[in-house]
Amino acid sequence: MAPSFAPSGVITLTTDFGHKGPFVATMKGVMLTRFAEARIIDLTHEIDVHFPAEAGFWLARSYAFFPSGTTHVAVVDPGVGTERDVVLLLHDGHVFLAPDNGLLAPLAGLPGARAHRLDPGRAQPYVLPAVSATFHGRDVFAPLAAEIAAGRVRVEDLGPHVASVVPSWVDEPEVSELRVSGSVIAVDNFGNLITNITAAHLGRFRRPVVRAGGHDLEVRRTYGDVRPGEALALVNSFGALEIARSERSAAESLGLSRGAPVTVREHDG
Amino acid sequence: MAPSFAPSGVITLTTDFGHKGPFVATMKGVMLTRFAEARIIDLTHEIDVHFPAEAGFWLARSYAFFPSGTTHVAVVDPGVGTERDVVLLLHDGHVFLAPDNGLLAPLAGLPGARAHRLDPGRAQPYVLPAVSATFHGRDVFAPLAAEIAAGRVRVEDLGPHVASVVPSWVDEPEVSELRVSGSVIAVDNFGNLITNITAAHLGRFRRPVVRAGGHDLEVRRTYGDVRPGEALALVNSFGALEIARSERSAAESLGLSRGAPVTVREHDG
Amino acid sequence: MAPSFAPSGVITLTTDFGHKGPFVATMKGVMLTRFAEARIIDLTHEIDVHFPAEAGFWLARSYAFFPSGTTHVAVVDPGVGTERDVVLLLHDGHVFLAPDNGLLAPLAGLPGARAHRLDPGRAQPYVLPAVSATFHGRDVFAPLAAEIAAGRVRVEDLGPHVASVVPSWVDEPEVSELRVSGSVIAVDNFGNLITNITAAHLGRFRRPVVRAGGHDLEVRRTYGDVRPGEALALVNSFGALEIARSERSAAESLGLSRGAPVTVREHDG
Repeated sequence: MAPSFAPSGVITLTTDFGHKGPFVATMKGVMLTRFAEARIIDLTHEIDVHFPAEAGFWLARSYAFFPSGTTHVAVVDPGVGTERDVVLLLHDGHVFLAPDNGLLAPLAGLPGARAHRLDPGRAQPYVLPAVSATFHGRDVFAPLAAEIAAGRVRVEDLGPHVASVVPSWVDEPEVSELRVSGSVIAVDNFGNLITNITAAHLGRFRRPVVRAGGHDLEVRRTYGDVRPGEALALVNSFGALEIARSERSAAESLGLSRGAPVTVREHDG
Repeated sequence: MAPSFAPSGVITLTTDFGHKGPFVATMKGVMLTRFAEARIIDLTHEIDVHFPAEAGFWLARSYAFFPSGTTHVAVVDPGVGTERDVVLLLHDGHVFLAPDNGLLAPLAGLPGARAHRLDPGRAQPYVLPAVSATFHGRDVFAPLAAEIAAGRVRVEDLGPHVASVVPSWVDEPEVSELRVSGSVIAVDNFGNLITNITAAHLGRFRRPVVRAGGHDLEVRRTYGDVRPGEALALVNSFGALEIARSERSAAESLGLSRGAPVTVREHDG
Repeated sequence: MAPSFAPSGVITLTTDFGHKGPFVATMKGVMLTRFAEARIIDLTHEIDVHFPAEAGFWLARSYAFFPSGTTHVAVVDPGVGTERDVVLLLHDGHVFLAPDNGLLAPLAGLPGARAHRLDPGRAQPYVLPAVSATFHGRDVFAPLAAEIAAGRVRVEDLGPHVASVVPSWVDEPEVSELRVSGSVIAVDNFGNLITNITAAHLGRFRRPVVRAGGHDLEVRRTYGDVRPGEALALVNSFGALEIARSERSAAESLGLSRGAPVTVREHDG
C-alpha cells in the first residue's frame, strides 16, 4: 500500500537563496496565487550555497516537528536547467519535493519512504506557463507544492515510482570496531559545529571521547555544564553530535567549518 | 477609466531595514492590528541601504507573481521626515506605496499605470495617531496598506492623480546603433550580477557579446552550460541580463558590484 | 484583580538564533501543530548572541504595535538546560514568555505587569513529550505559547505569581543633576546607535548636548536635518535617544558598538 498523505495546508521552504532579492518571495507569490490558504514557513534560506547535503540533513531531522500533511519544498539546485530530475517523496505523512541531486537521500533511505520521479509531461498542467532555465523553484516547485498542499494533485500522479535517488554528497559516518568517523555538516549562528554522527553512534561507547580540530572533548548534557569559553561535545536537540563552546563560537576558536572530520572513540581510562 | 483594484488581502514588504531590530515586525503588527486577515509576504529587506532604485527594479519584475489585488509596500526612505512626497500607484490590478524618491519610477512608466500623490490631510484618519519623524514605514505606510488591502479605502481617495513621479536614480540603458550600455543593479546571494539590460535589448543582436570587468562573455541558457568556475552571461528568470559564474561568485571573481558598467555589442565573427 | 488576556491568535518570536538551520522554523512547526490558526510574526532573530538585554529592550518598546492579546516569545537563553527559571508575564493585555535571565526585566517593572514563574509540573501536559537539554525554544516555549495563544491555558494556571524577576544585564541610565549617562543597547541595519536614554530623560534639559565617542552632538528631529555624512542625535521612533549619521553608518564612523557610553548634558551656551 502506498503511504498516505492528507494535506494540512502547510508548506515549508528550504533554499540556499539567502534573503537578497525577490527569489523566495516570488515562490510564495506563486503559491498564494494558486492556493490562497497556504501557510508557508521558511525552514531556512541560508543553506550553504550549492550544498544540497545540508538541506537534506536538516529536513530529515526537522520535518516531524511540522503538522502531518505538510509539503516540504527544498531548492538547492546548482544543476537547474540541465538534465537533472526532480524527486517527489512521500514519508510518514509528509511530502518532499527537491532536485534529484542527493538532497533527499537522507529521507529516501528511511523505512516506508516512497520516491517518485517527476514526469515533465504530467507536471505540465501545473507549472508556470513559461518555465525559465534558471529558476525552477518559482516556476516548477512552487506551483507543484501549492497544488499538492491544496489537495488537487497527488505525488503518485506526477510521475513513476523510482527505487532509488541520487546519493548524498556526504557519506554516512564510517563505523569501525574502535571508532566512528563523521564530519561537520552545518555551523549554526552560535558557531556550534553540527555533525552527521548521531546519538545512536555514541551508544556503542561506554565513555565516548570526541576528537575535533586536535582537541579531545567529553560528551556533556548542555552548554552550561562547562565554564564559559570551554569547549564541549553534546548530543543536540536534533539527535546529532555537536561540538560547542560555552557562550562562545566553537567554529571560530577551533578553526573548523563544514567538512571538518570528527571522530569518536572509547575513553582510555 | 481608472484602473481597478480588487484587494486579495495579500501585502508585500520591500525595505532596506535588514533583519536587526523590530522595524519590519512592528510594521506587520500595525497591519495585523488593522486587518487581522492580512497575509504579509516579505519581498526582501536586504535592498542596498538607501538605494531606492533596487527596490523598484525588483518590484517591477516581481509583482506579477503575486495574486491580482496585492498591495505592495516599499520603504527605502533616506528622506523620511523631510518634505518628500508619498506615491500610491495603481497598475495591472496591483497597488504600490512608496516614498516619491524614484523608487516607483520603473512602474510609473508602464502602460496603464496611474500614480496618486498622498494628501496628508486625507491620509490622516488612517495613519497612526502620533507619526514619528523617522519611521513612516510603521506609522504611515503600514496602516495605509492595511486599510487598502482590507478594501476600506481606495488609492484614488487618498490624494490627487499626478502625471509623473520622481525619476529613478539609475538611468535606463543607453542604446546606440552598435551597443547597449547598462549597469549592475543588484547582486544576489550567489554573487550573480544582475543588470538593467533586458532580453528585449539583446534581441537586436545576432550573436551578442557581453562586456563586464574587462571580460567578453557569450550569452548562455543556464549556469550548467559552462564548466564550474567559468563566467557566463544569461537572461535570468526575471528577463534581466545577468553576469554569472558557474557554481562560484561572479561578483567576487570579477571584482564587480552595484553600478558596474556592462555593455552588449555584436560578436565580431 | 489580575490583568486580563484575550488571545488574538498572534504570536511574536524574538531570538538570537539568526537564520541558519531549522531552529526558528521548528518552533513554528510545533506551534502550527498545536494551533493551526496561529499567526506568527518574527520580531527579530538577530538579537546579539547571548545578550538578553537587547531582546527585552525591543520587546518593551514594540509590543504595543501588535494586537491586544498577542503572545510574545523571547528565547535568548545561554543557560538553557541548567537550573534557570522561565517567566510568564502579563502586561497591558499581552503575554510574554522568556527565560528568567533578565530578559523581561524592562517589562516586569512596568505598572500593572504581573509575573509568574513556570512550574515545570504544571507545564508538563503542554510541553513536548521529550524535552531536550539544549532547545527549550522548540520543546517548552513554542508549545506553551501555542496553547496560550489558542486560549487553552492561562498564564496564571502555569505557575505561581512572583514579586520580581532577575534584573537586566544592563543598568538603567544614571541620572544626576547635571547629566544622564546611558549606553548603546543595539545597532540597526543603518549603523544607527540606539541607547537606553529616553525622550523623558532629555526633557530635563533646555538644550541637550549628547556626547558619544568623543563627539558632541545636538538633538535633531530627523536624519535629513543635517547634511549627508554628518553625525546627529535624535529621539527615534521608539522613544530612544539614537546617535546617527545622515545616509552613512554612525557605528562605523564613530567606531562605536554595543555598550558604548553615551551622556547627555546641558549646552554651555
